[in-house]
Amino acid sequence: MDLAIRGTRMVTFRDGRPSVVQGGTVGVRDGRITYVGPDDGFEGRAEREIDGAGHVTMPGLVDAHVHTGPTLLRGAAQDVPEIEWMNRALGPLADHLTDDDRVVGAKLGVLEGIRSGVTTFGEYASDVGRLVEEVYEPWGVRVAATETINAVADDADLDPDVPYPFDERTGRTALDRADALSDDYADSDLVIPTYGPQALDMVPLELLEETFAHAAERDCRVHVHVAQGRRERRQIEARYGDDASTVGVLEDNGLLDERLIAVHCHDATPEERERLAESGAAYVGCPSSIAAIDGVTPPVEWFRRRDAPVGLGTDQAPGPGGHDMLREVRTAALLSKTVHADPTALPAWEALRLATLGGATALGLDDRIGSLEVGKRADLVVIDAADPSVAPVVDEPFSTAVPNLAHSASRAAVDTVVVDGDVVLRDGEFVDVDERDVIDEAQERAERVFEEGAADWRAAGSALVDRADEGWL
Amino acid sequence: MDLAIRGTRMVTFRDGRPSVVQGGTVGVRDGRITYVGPDDGFEGRAEREIDGAGHVTMPGLVDAHVHTGPTLLRGAAQDVPEIEWMNRALGPLADHLTDDDRVVGAKLGVLEGIRSGVTTFGEYASDVGRLVEEVYEPWGVRVAATETINAVADDADLDPDVPYPFDERTGRTALDRADALSDDYADSDLVIPTYGPQALDMVPLELLEETFAHAAERDCRVHVHVAQGRRERRQIEARYGDDASTVGVLEDNGLLDERLIAVHCHDATPEERERLAESGAAYVGCPSSIAAIDGVTPPVEWFRRRDAPVGLGTDQAPGPGGHDMLREVRTAALLSKTVHADPTALPAWEALRLATLGGATALGLDDRIGSLEVGKRADLVVIDAADPSVAPVVDEPFSTAVPNLAHSASRAAVDTVVVDGDVVLRDGEFVDVDERDVIDEAQERAERVFEEGAADWRAAGSALVDRADEGWL
Repeated sequence: MDLAIRGTRMVTFRDGRPSVVQGGTVGVRDGRITYVGPDDGFEGRAEREIDGAGHVTMPGLVDAHVHTGPTLLRGAAQDVPEIEWMNRALGPLADHLTDDDRVVGAKLGVLEGIRSGVTTFGEYASDVGRLVEEVYEPWGVRVAATETINAVADDADLDPDVPYPFDERTGRTALDRADALSDDYADSDLVIPTYGPQALDMVPLELLEETFAHAAERDCRVHVHVAQGRRERRQIEARYGDDASTVGVLEDNGLLDERLIAVHCHDATPEERERLAESGAAYVGCPSSIAAIDGVTPPVEWFRRRDAPVGLGTDQAPGPGGHDMLREVRTAALLSKTVHADPTALPAWEALRLATLGGATALGLDDRIGSLEVGKRADLVVIDAADPSVAPVVDEPFSTAVPNLAHSASRAAVDTVVVDGDVVLRDGEFVDVDERDVIDEAQERAERVFEEGAADWRAAGSALVDRADEGWL
Repeated sequence: MDLAIRGTRMVTFRDGRPSVVQGGTVGVRDGRITYVGPDDGFEGRAEREIDGAGHVTMPGLVDAHVHTGPTLLRGAAQDVPEIEWMNRALGPLADHLTDDDRVVGAKLGVLEGIRSGVTTFGEYASDVGRLVEEVYEPWGVRVAATETINAVADDADLDPDVPYPFDERTGRTALDRADALSDDYADSDLVIPTYGPQALDMVPLELLEETFAHAAERDCRVHVHVAQGRRERRQIEARYGDDASTVGVLEDNGLLDERLIAVHCHDATPEERERLAESGAAYVGCPSSIAAIDGVTPPVEWFRRRDAPVGLGTDQAPGPGGHDMLREVRTAALLSKTVHADPTALPAWEALRLATLGGATALGLDDRIGSLEVGKRADLVVIDAADPSVAPVVDEPFSTAVPNLAHSASRAAVDTVVVDGDVVLRDGEFVDVDERDVIDEAQERAERVFEEGAADWRAAGSALVDRADEGWL
């Protein structure tokens, strides 16, 4: 046995329920869970034993949809009208991010995520292979690495009511990259290649069909932004006809099925959502991000109530602020309760399930992660029940571990994070990553990016320009 | 000079705006701020200097409405229908809290709050003087100590449509306690006595009028739960007539004015809100709590847009989970954005203002706290800008400090907390409080309370009983 966490309170999510057990042991060998059960049934010794007394051990969190590349731009764009967010607030600064900046941004974002208990990231980026090579693989963190496929020609002035011009070569290059990634990591436990056609308005139908076909050949998932807003709807109507919608076009072309991971969907009509849910497609919602950028609560609870595979994601730092997934659990619950005007909506145990097994299922990884079960890869989080955001935790007449983790636990309570059997964070400190180094480099690079983008940002004239001049920022 | 924080980025909220300044010094003498300005204008030396480089210094947060006493019951009641929350889920366990348990609960809640940057608590409790003596005073934490005045006779089976029976003596005793508190602490900087008639349905009108009169004599505020829900509305109609409402009765009796701190108000009609806002009364909203318990977003943004004095509060741990006020800032913003379907609602700078100067104003304390200004009491928070939830922070072309604090900063980034010039938390560690001791005692007592309340909890039969039996809890 390589590792054992002993005497711990366990939240297993076996069979989809927390099934809290006190006085348990989780044993790990060769990156795999080999024992989950009572302390006294555990035989033999582990090379490394972690005392789990006063702690809660649960499956690692899955941040099922995340762009960590822009993390250097945290604080750059929020509190503006939705229509300004990308083009006038974020874009003028994002244009000045180099590929190297995005790598450092990813490091910062992943670091923040791990500190909140994330062990698997549904990373979505152009040339995602570079983030895999420079961040995820060296750090030993699991990633559903999604290569962005976007064929929109570089054109500053895109009219939402005229089909965007496509550049065949751009789209093709991205698909080639996705294919190469999927070949390179076909046998990897830690890197799960995923195809990422950005959105239906951003790729020609033929390329989309080809992408789905390539994904099917390689048994990969296809991760798509779906029904993101009015601009997308107008594009789809302009290209496919007045009655067309993203969900309709996907369905008409046989692309609506279990392979699809549909993200956002806040602009989908109830009828479109119904068809999505019936198709077996997975849904991922990013409550903080869509609330911050669009002022809308995404239909997380809606899809959950239809028993769809549902995951949660933190999206990108500019807007919602960052990649604290433990906080996202709580935010998802509160936003769901208010949008449904129902305090029983997205209860603690379900919110926590979506952030673990739900996300794993949505990404097609529930055979290997998402719960504490013998045979699964060992992705674990150990949380200090004596942190002032968690304590006290009692076990009778019911366990308060689950509500206290879902509704209250701060990132500061995350004590130990294990990915694929390796300890990444211990006693709240990174084992191999030089955190200070990452943050210093992020700070330095951010100063340069904002400085270089300052004139463009001012010229774009978002609402933030005046706010800054008036001393509000 | 006793204390100086040097070379720091300052968020001052002088004139109500963050007005971020880089390279500043905050100087403190005798518990008072004596210098706020550029480093190079600071003359003399302080006995204790804190290096503020790479940090953000801002006014201490004000948790304007909080019941810390029930913190031992964190996780006891949430995800249930509103009608069950108090009577079937929380109540059966809360009945087993002793006064000593409430003191320990208060310690845990205050400790959690301080760790999130809170320097002033709008504490609301019966016999609040005991919490003042055993928690706030010995710990040196500022408190608007609000004595609960509730005259409802102890009767298990209160019919919402029949005026609750009042017990004259109970109400009178509470008012006497409030008077004594206000006499004892008339000259205190740290303890601000406040009158707390619980709600209009829980006190006779005569006692309420008397309470306002006593408060006026002593220049104290009156802190009241207003328009909390249908049960209150039905009581007011039963007692005062079919067209009566809490706001209407208060207004008709001349009690709607600047002295009033009205909490919650989520059941107030727009017209009632209008009258409240026009009266000059302060408003305090508890977004996490009301979302968790009622599935409703309270009208924080509504009152803010009318320029009412508005503060934020965390209410009690059971339901929303705890007393992390930094998280409450973010939650307030996201819930406000979605309920208004407007991403510009409650922007970062305003959310942060409500949690500092806004709360101070709502509690009647803006002459002494809420901003970094010479002459005010020295309540400060120093936040690590290199924490992975805050970094990077840039200053040009605008400062990202405010959005990063409001939308992203984790409690883990809170480095130093100063109350009335005294350092309470330093480098993330309590200076005088034995945190571990408090948590151990909270854990021990909570186990006893839940054990003693188990049979009552089960007999009350809330939805959580089945959930627990089925392995969801």
